Amino acid sequence: MLRTHTCGELRISDVSKEVILSGWVQRTRDKGGMIWIDLRDRYGITQLMLEEGKTAPEIIAQARNLGREFVVQATGVVTERFAKNDKMATGDIEIKLTGLTVLNSAKLPPFQIEDKTDGGDELRLKYRYLDLRRDIVRKNLELRHKVAQQTRLFMDAQNFIEVETPVLIKSTPEGARDFVVPSRMNPGEFYALPQSPQTFKQLLMVSGFDRYYQIVKCFRDEDLRADRQPEFTQIDCEMSFVTQEDILQMFEGLIRHLFKAVKGLDLPEVPRMTYATAMKKYGSDKPDIRFGMEFVELKGDNDFVSGKNFGLFDSAELVVGICAKGCAEYTRKQMDELTEWVKRPQIGAKGLIYARYNADGTIKSSVDKFYSEEDLKQWAEAFGAQPGDLMLIMAGEANKTRKQLNELRLEMGSRLGLRNPDDYKVLWVVDFPLLEYGEADGRPEENRWYAMHHPFTSPKPEDIPLLTTDLGAVRANAYDMVINGTEVGGGSVRIFQRPLQMQMFEILGFTPEEAKAQFGFLMEAFEFGAPPHAGIAFGFDRLCSIFGGVDSIRDFIAFPKNNSGRDVMIDSPSTIDQKQLDELKIATKA
Amino acid sequence: MLRTHTCGELRISDVSKEVILSGWVQRTRDKGGMIWIDLRDRYGITQLMLEEGKTAPEIIAQARNLGREFVVQATGVVTERFAKNDKMATGDIEIKLTGLTVLNSAKLPPFQIEDKTDGGDELRLKYRYLDLRRDIVRKNLELRHKVAQQTRLFMDAQNFIEVETPVLIKSTPEGARDFVVPSRMNPGEFYALPQSPQTFKQLLMVSGFDRYYQIVKCFRDEDLRADRQPEFTQIDCEMSFVTQEDILQMFEGLIRHLFKAVKGLDLPEVPRMTYATAMKKYGSDKPDIRFGMEFVELKGDNDFVSGKNFGLFDSAELVVGICAKGCAEYTRKQMDELTEWVKRPQIGAKGLIYARYNADGTIKSSVDKFYSEEDLKQWAEAFGAQPGDLMLIMAGEANKTRKQLNELRLEMGSRLGLRNPDDYKVLWVVDFPLLEYGEADGRPEENRWYAMHHPFTSPKPEDIPLLTTDLGAVRANAYDMVINGTEVGGGSVRIFQRPLQMQMFEILGFTPEEAKAQFGFLMEAFEFGAPPHAGIAFGFDRLCSIFGGVDSIRDFIAFPKNNSGRDVMIDSPSTIDQKQLDELKIATKA
Repeated sequence: MLRTHTCGELRISDVSKEVILSGWVQRTRDKGGMIWIDLRDRYGITQLMLEEGKTAPEIIAQARNLGREFVVQATGVVTERFAKNDKMATGDIEIKLTGLTVLNSAKLPPFQIEDKTDGGDELRLKYRYLDLRRDIVRKNLELRHKVAQQTRLFMDAQNFIEVETPVLIKSTPEGARDFVVPSRMNPGEFYALPQSPQTFKQLLMVSGFDRYYQIVKCFRDEDLRADRQPEFTQIDCEMSFVTQEDILQMFEGLIRHLFKAVKGLDLPEVPRMTYATAMKKYGSDKPDIRFGMEFVELKGDNDFVSGKNFGLFDSAELVVGICAKGCAEYTRKQMDELTEWVKRPQIGAKGLIYARYNADGTIKSSVDKFYSEEDLKQWAEAFGAQPGDLMLIMAGEANKTRKQLNELRLEMGSRLGLRNPDDYKVLWVVDFPLLEYGEADGRPEENRWYAMHHPFTSPKPEDIPLLTTDLGAVRANAYDMVINGTEVGGGSVRIFQRPLQMQMFEILGFTPEEAKAQFGFLMEAFEFGAPPHAGIAFGFDRLCSIFGGVDSIRDFIAFPKNNSGRDVMIDSPSTIDQKQLDELKIATKA
Repeated sequence: MLRTHTCGELRISDVSKEVILSGWVQRTRDKGGMIWIDLRDRYGITQLMLEEGKTAPEIIAQARNLGREFVVQATGVVTERFAKNDKMATGDIEIKLTGLTVLNSAKLPPFQIEDKTDGGDELRLKYRYLDLRRDIVRKNLELRHKVAQQTRLFMDAQNFIEVETPVLIKSTPEGARDFVVPSRMNPGEFYALPQSPQTFKQLLMVSGFDRYYQIVKCFRDEDLRADRQPEFTQIDCEMSFVTQEDILQMFEGLIRHLFKAVKGLDLPEVPRMTYATAMKKYGSDKPDIRFGMEFVELKGDNDFVSGKNFGLFDSAELVVGICAKGCAEYTRKQMDELTEWVKRPQIGAKGLIYARYNADGTIKSSVDKFYSEEDLKQWAEAFGAQPGDLMLIMAGEANKTRKQLNELRLEMGSRLGLRNPDDYKVLWVVDFPLLEYGEADGRPEENRWYAMHHPFTSPKPEDIPLLTTDLGAVRANAYDMVINGTEVGGGSVRIFQRPLQMQMFEILGFTPEEAKAQFGFLMEAFEFGAPPHAGIAFGFDRLCSIFGGVDSIRDFIAFPKNNSGRDVMIDSPSTIDQKQLDELKIATKA
């Protein structure tokens, strides 16, 4: 037996017990003939004690040879501590050593194994197994485990069946790029790794499974932005014989359960906002509603600005702004910096107009040349601005300007401390457009209509006639869950009729042959008694990061890849033997 | 709202409620102006009723147009049934219809959706979504869900943390063939799909996670035998600061919990058998101990047979047999058939010697020419044979003969009805050899020493000196769990010291450079304070099939592949676009 107790469990009631502990040396102190060793494991830290003259000399000698992170087995007697430490669960006791065995030595770690470490990102990724020893990193993964547990508890109680869907599936042209897997048994052919189990969960509904869920790995071969991973985890769900309302209720229930179980928070009812409203009021389909600062249109809904010889506003499709409370005293330098901020290529605004509502009641703007104080009062009224507030205004093409102002709004929210990660605001965004014209997800190709959610999303029944007249106006029964400005989940009511699905593929530019080759099995399934069904998927890594109050999903993944898709710890991807290539009947090209 | 209740929940206490049900038409009966419809969903079947003259004519007309597997929504009033059906949970009531909506029609299914179906294997795989509608298939997946749930309950209660390990990892030469994934961002390089999360779970132990588990997909690109799948699921576990005994106790606990929770069975303590004993007594490292019929050596431990001029026995390394109780009356024809059975290429025996212990006390053998009745009495004593028993004897090279006799023993067990799938006998097989000489798992290559379990398995400490003198004699701290003759799990105490791991790679024929390139990260991790650790993995699909009393794992996988590794439903693998190949910088070869 390598231990009788963990390093987190001994208490004053255990005094005088003979125990065996095993763990890592966190630190040692050697002072005035006394030696103390902090022994650490996942469960806590226990202090070991040796005393010259009392402890056997060979044990003392061994203790003096210990280094940080050595793995040791310690035998001794639980003793009440002279100086108690009420910051430690085991702080009332220490172990008087009677035996000490080094199970494994340790080289000096390449960075400090402390909450505040001196290790850079790549170094910590290379030695991820040491990074995972740090309390805050381990706690992230413990949180993840808890979120998974609680998700399963809720889903099981709601009669959902967890079904595993295949990982080796079929490559499809729609959506992001697939990872593919050459088949040795079927030379020249490839499996693909799933971007989601979408078609399989729909088939499970056709099978009558009624309520399906799975916490499942998904894969996307995309160019990795700061916070994307080539493999990620979804809570994937589907239900039969439900409307959108049923889904929203069910998964509002899930999220409330998780907030209660994981964070101890009673979430209020989750508000709903249409996509159209979200875009108009926040310039984003995932508005952060922890703070207001809603968009106010000076030209758009109304027109307070045209005809004053200010060319920018006269020619703009939209003039829209936000009111930053209490920012009227921003200095010229601050305003210049803010203007530069919106002009950065990531945002790409041409400039920023502002109007200060001074404490003395006067209003001064950066366009005083064109607008009288009277005009500005009218603006202030529209903004609901008070003395002390700062109005920030942008102008241009409507969609672009809204997106730019969204960035500014979020930035101002951050600067004003309105985006506290411990303040949780959950939102349903509903009534997404079915289609969008332009490029597919990250793949600059020919301009055409793309499914905004995916090709299996149902149009709203009342909008079906628009499929032949005005594609851009068709709304979908699609919904996203947004927490603090981050999309954590999304889904839709699905098409379950073959003719409508066929029509959808046609709109997306599939020939009938292509549609059949790719999704013939699904459309055929729809002919054998497919029930109405709908579903949702949550980004599990993202959800965990939000519960953890941390921006990066990488901190919630045990072994993440870097921005080049590499696992720098195991050094993967890597070349493979010519023999493997030959067996697979493939060759690499320069 | 598409339904107020499921098809499994209405009872006599619900009579007179207005309800809405949705589901599939299982069957309709139309007789004497009455129509009954059995409406089915996952939860059960409810009878709908229409009556000419009472039900609205348009509803009657619609009901008469329904076909099997149509999806309908039915509105009506719960009514007490005239003729109750106590075989159905809802058999006390029926629904008097007031409304009927066809949600989707259905073509005639290509096979009967009944427990006994007329569909062949490939047809049912092609329409797997229809096969999954069959009660017995859906119940298999429900059982699987329950086994997963109960596994997680147990593991969570034991303080194990579920950690997800990566799917895109690194190809390693040891073990079975890897599936590989070309990397677009790192041209010429490949990820591999994990055959198991072995190195990652060991690194989690180095990280101090202490107790890890995961229910996880694993992948092997092997030529598929009848009951193998390219992707399969494991319950993967690892523990720190434990001995083999701790692991056996913990996972005996898991299996007892599962038997209790899933089958309602109290499993007795799990016996243990060494590999050496298993091979000697059963000719197999996974003996089926539901029945005895242990091997008896006529030449080996003893020698009752040499020197009687019977060349086969004289020259044999081993003469060994089993005693088939009550089979003395096998006819000559039956004996010929049994002899042919052991001579089939799958078994490859040269022949079969037998001796009948007749009811009258005489013994007659197929080698009476060489052995007197006195000799045969001696044999019978060795076999513990009684009048009425049949002794079946094989001879030849020891290992080969034991394997052949193992097949015969299992066959006789089956023929004698001693292998009831509802009778569960669990066994630990321990003390496996560390190494075996010959071919690797399914890959006929150069003969050399291979790790019997895997290269990370620790030799027994007392056998470490043999690593330099007698490799074949080194025993490992490795163990398998066997249920009814099937290996359901296996694991080992791991090497956690760099020098021993390096020595192991050397024995397996790795150059130091190869060892470093492939497993450098693990060996480096061992230098930063690796704790003693050990683990186990259970074949989850297999475990489910055993709980289900069914031989095939395929029945417990929602969307299995066929023996050519194809998913015939979605038609995968498939060719991919030239554009995809170009992006990946690979080419297929003829």
